[in-house]
Amino acid sequence: MTTPAEIQVAKTLSGIQPVTEAAVLKAYERLDALTKPRRSLGYLEEIAARYAALRQEARPSAARKRVAVFVGDHRVVEEGVSAYPSSVTALMVRNFIAGGAAINVLARQVEADIEVLDVGMIEDLGDLPGLTRRNVKRGAGNIARGPAMTRDEALSAIAAGIEAAHRAADQGVDMLATGEMGIGNTTPAAALFSAYLGIPVSRLCGTGTGLDSEGMRSKARALRRALRVNRARLATPLEILAALGGLEIAGICGLCLGGAERRLAVVVDGFISSAGALAAMRIKPEVKGFLFFAHMSAEAGHRHFFKSEGLRPIVDLGMRLGEGTGAAIAMQIIENAMAIYNEMATWSEAGITPGA
Amino acid sequence: MTTPAEIQVAKTLSGIQPVTEAAVLKAYERLDALTKPRRSLGYLEEIAARYAALRQEARPSAARKRVAVFVGDHRVVEEGVSAYPSSVTALMVRNFIAGGAAINVLARQVEADIEVLDVGMIEDLGDLPGLTRRNVKRGAGNIARGPAMTRDEALSAIAAGIEAAHRAADQGVDMLATGEMGIGNTTPAAALFSAYLGIPVSRLCGTGTGLDSEGMRSKARALRRALRVNRARLATPLEILAALGGLEIAGICGLCLGGAERRLAVVVDGFISSAGALAAMRIKPEVKGFLFFAHMSAEAGHRHFFKSEGLRPIVDLGMRLGEGTGAAIAMQIIENAMAIYNEMATWSEAGITPGA
Repeated sequence: MTTPAEIQVAKTLSGIQPVTEAAVLKAYERLDALTKPRRSLGYLEEIAARYAALRQEARPSAARKRVAVFVGDHRVVEEGVSAYPSSVTALMVRNFIAGGAAINVLARQVEADIEVLDVGMIEDLGDLPGLTRRNVKRGAGNIARGPAMTRDEALSAIAAGIEAAHRAADQGVDMLATGEMGIGNTTPAAALFSAYLGIPVSRLCGTGTGLDSEGMRSKARALRRALRVNRARLATPLEILAALGGLEIAGICGLCLGGAERRLAVVVDGFISSAGALAAMRIKPEVKGFLFFAHMSAEAGHRHFFKSEGLRPIVDLGMRLGEGTGAAIAMQIIENAMAIYNEMATWSEAGITPGA
Repeated sequence: MTTPAEIQVAKTLSGIQPVTEAAVLKAYERLDALTKPRRSLGYLEEIAARYAALRQEARPSAARKRVAVFVGDHRVVEEGVSAYPSSVTALMVRNFIAGGAAINVLARQVEADIEVLDVGMIEDLGDLPGLTRRNVKRGAGNIARGPAMTRDEALSAIAAGIEAAHRAADQGVDMLATGEMGIGNTTPAAALFSAYLGIPVSRLCGTGTGLDSEGMRSKARALRRALRVNRARLATPLEILAALGGLEIAGICGLCLGGAERRLAVVVDGFISSAGALAAMRIKPEVKGFLFFAHMSAEAGHRHFFKSEGLRPIVDLGMRLGEGTGAAIAMQIIENAMAIYNEMATWSEAGITPGA
């Protein structure tokens, strides 16, 4: 039987058109005409060229920004993999709604709005104003004992992310960012990196929010078990996501897909968000051209992802908080790059012949 | 005879009080009470702690920002060390005043104002509105043939920078950034790094705005000559600056000193600005606590400076444009860090006991 979520995802996948090299080169023509030594703004110019190419507009705006914060819990916390209990997830969601968390402060700083989506919280916060209710399941299954989600659950969470991207596009948002909250979620993220990249879990097991050495041993054990007990469920990119991921990670995957479909840049936050983005890139490789990776997380293992995929983070500030905090900082740099692209004078506009 | 500039500089040097470790630790007490895993914002927290400590206020603002762009020419261009002729300096100053240059765009982006100061231009732009006239000398001397400046000229340019910092402080500016324009100025900057750090010029000679291989040979030759012909003039930090520097580099040195005196953060831009900041740190080591180094320039040799001084840039975006462009980007990240410090909820304000 085909579910509505499956139809939604299939439609989105078929709607994604790649960012072309020709469009990137065309954007560089403008950048090279601006009043600066050629390519002297380095990576800012690479960012601007790709952003212009993906938007397919002459002077694309990057002003209207949104951070979509996907929230989900993880039953693998039962294995002692986190310094905090799952109850903190709901407490932090209340903090997001009240405006006191790091992502609230940084979103205000960069003039982005925030959408907080419950896709997999254990606790039911009811009709909490400001919370988008798209709960697929009350917590991902304990991956050390079985799958995180069924295929249908994963597709439903992906669809929630796609819809968030569509909603943003319909509301005139120029640029999306991923964020997440979910106690325990560095464990499924590490499991996904291991399965997708073929890297041993030992190199991907980090301290998360602050594990002690006993916690680190429990986490490493849970990760090894997760890969073992789910071995038969890892045949396709979608099945890997369902078996080892989490609802909020699947939501992030959906945001990347839906953003690419609507030709919006999606700024991927840190370690957990990168796992969701990687799932999207494995499901649909053309997505990669729409993604900007915000920062190198301090979480061990993130650098293996960047190296393996040949990607470059925009900043490296030793952050390991999640929520979309690194993405917020990177979004303003992308906006800076687009202001350069859109607003700088060309040599001819300035009436300068620099070689004279 | 004691000149007014010498008196000004001496007064500033004696007025600089260090940033204390106790003040930094006190700032961390607040950061550790905020609703996030301890130290999970990494380098952002280091930035916030030091900024709070240097401002000596409970909730220090980083909102009012200014980029001081010092402009000077260099007679060493006669040696074939630059891809552009000196006439481009004045053309770019007109572009700054018209608002079309990269620094104009980025300053608007980060809501900083700009002050453009002629401290050493060859061309006299007269009463060009928007240009602060503090010309000390019409172009620094050719360092491959003799000194860039006399001691008095260097002191006058430093005093111009100190006065710019004082003016900003009096006008309520919270944070300063250095910028510069001056065709040929990677050559004196490299010479200064060599003299202050004891690094061979061969490791500090980069392509600047885009030198070809013949230009690179000319630049390397000029640098070796500069160090040789000025050897007898390199006894003190001030004498090194005068012999091998430039007017705009001395102005930047002064901005660092004057900013520290008035307890303002000074965000140091790229390769050339770092040379000015290094002069300030050698003249008065306590200045270091007030400086934030914006970015790792793509100009070869900048990384030797960071390594040698044990410093960390805020971003690494492969930029090599100068003008203060990297500093503008870094200023917004410092402002982000201070918003975290000032605006985030504490665990008790949020009513959360995370370990519960």
